Amino acid sequence: MAKRPMKAAFQGERGAFSQQAVRQLLGDGAEVLPCQRFEEVFQSLRVRKVDAAVVPIENTLAGSVHENYDHLLHFDDFEIVAETSVRIVHNLIASPGVTFRKIRRVFSHPVALNQCLDFFTNHPDIERVPFYDTAGSVKMIMEDGLKDAAAIASALSAEIYGAKILKRSIEDDRRNYTRFFLLRRRDAARRAATNRSAARGWKTTLVFTTRNIPGTLFRALSAFALRDINLMKIESRPLRGKPWEYLFYLDFLGDLDEPRVQNALSHLSELADFLRVLGCYPRGE
Amino acid sequence: MAKRPMKAAFQGERGAFSQQAVRQLLGDGAEVLPCQRFEEVFQSLRVRKVDAAVVPIENTLAGSVHENYDHLLHFDDFEIVAETSVRIVHNLIASPGVTFRKIRRVFSHPVALNQCLDFFTNHPDIERVPFYDTAGSVKMIMEDGLKDAAAIASALSAEIYGAKILKRSIEDDRRNYTRFFLLRRRDAARRAATNRSAARGWKTTLVFTTRNIPGTLFRALSAFALRDINLMKIESRPLRGKPWEYLFYLDFLGDLDEPRVQNALSHLSELADFLRVLGCYPRGE
Repeated sequence: MAKRPMKAAFQGERGAFSQQAVRQLLGDGAEVLPCQRFEEVFQSLRVRKVDAAVVPIENTLAGSVHENYDHLLHFDDFEIVAETSVRIVHNLIASPGVTFRKIRRVFSHPVALNQCLDFFTNHPDIERVPFYDTAGSVKMIMEDGLKDAAAIASALSAEIYGAKILKRSIEDDRRNYTRFFLLRRRDAARRAATNRSAARGWKTTLVFTTRNIPGTLFRALSAFALRDINLMKIESRPLRGKPWEYLFYLDFLGDLDEPRVQNALSHLSELADFLRVLGCYPRGE
Repeated sequence: MAKRPMKAAFQGERGAFSQQAVRQLLGDGAEVLPCQRFEEVFQSLRVRKVDAAVVPIENTLAGSVHENYDHLLHFDDFEIVAETSVRIVHNLIASPGVTFRKIRRVFSHPVALNQCLDFFTNHPDIERVPFYDTAGSVKMIMEDGLKDAAAIASALSAEIYGAKILKRSIEDDRRNYTRFFLLRRRDAARRAATNRSAARGWKTTLVFTTRNIPGTLFRALSAFALRDINLMKIESRPLRGKPWEYLFYLDFLGDLDEPRVQNALSHLSELADFLRVLGCYPRGE
């Protein structure tokens, strides 16, 4: 009996970098549900319209996607089951038959336009036009049959909309990566978590608050440092209802099955007012 | 001889919450230079168009203003010389003579509209219209003489544009505060820093990076914890050119003149690849 392909929600139009992340996480066969807003991505998973959600959590140039940190806290029936990094390669894309010499306008999301400033400096006669989405700008120039316009977007979006890549990799900084989480509902995540081997080890993400007394963050981190557990990331977010207090999100290298990790969590829970593990997943490339 | 009033740049239209912060920090007599973008605020101070800049750094509901953290690093000739908190009170504001019953549309910045959801739930016949700025929406309804429209903005903006407050404090959550920094050029800041007494003590803000070896953040924080110096905030930002490495911004209670603070900084500098004090200033209300 053929297994039904997984269906994953992501934010953006078809061809968005998030869909590239879906492919890396679930393979080319996965079905997708493009959503306009991040909240819709989470809601689709909650109401079981999809089996999984793929959301960006940080970018090496722009920083964390704080809205998704907030959603991870709010949607407490989800678990992070995998991570992946997508290198953000911006390509100049046009309709087949349109040559570079004809391009007068380039559409894309403002962030993408801003990441290709060298290109626009070298081509001062080409106008930058902000658009709501990278892949959406490819869709638009194809649907409207624009002959003097191009878009800046992923190679995947050119493939999906039948457009042509005029110039590859026009971004200023190639050290531009976005890290994505694959989320599943806790019930499904438990069933999927069987094989505990992972080539590059495991990562765990959790969120906690401490009582507002001096030195608590230091003591919270000591739960990990004293057990030689490596922190990979710390992110603070405001704690609602308690001005100038914070939630802390931590990523560390370690598997929940390891005794030292269990001891660290038990130690942390002595200090934390609130503690929740958001997921334990194989360390991505 | 009368002293020339200070002139401060801020982002937003006249009447923005940032201008309220200017008043709290520099008094009612300060002159202002409203700017469209945060970068312009910093540039105006660099090129000496103004004596000071006032920028929001965090909000108790929305979190940190990450763009300004990045600017604080980039504009290395500035110093934080004071902080203040503004309670964000959203008022419904219209032209004089317009009564509440006539209101069909309410203009404001999307964030402000989203912070008054209870009001719109209770008045489902009133349309929400996103606008580029809170105070700018007051300016627009006054300039265009709109008779069926109101704006959501600060009390100061009603005062400045001669408009009328129809309803005060319609925000959903009153624990909505924004913290602002007052910035000056380092040369001017040094001249201003004379009297080292402050009613509520001093705060210091710094930024550092650590070598990417395990446990370095914990050890960096130990420089403070071991000397009973209280951290108030930690914020991480991506380190440009080093994917998955971070800059850390710390706020702590302490005066650079204290020996234990000097010892902590000396200890931190043993561990940090990069360390810069962004300012030492009286702890705000």
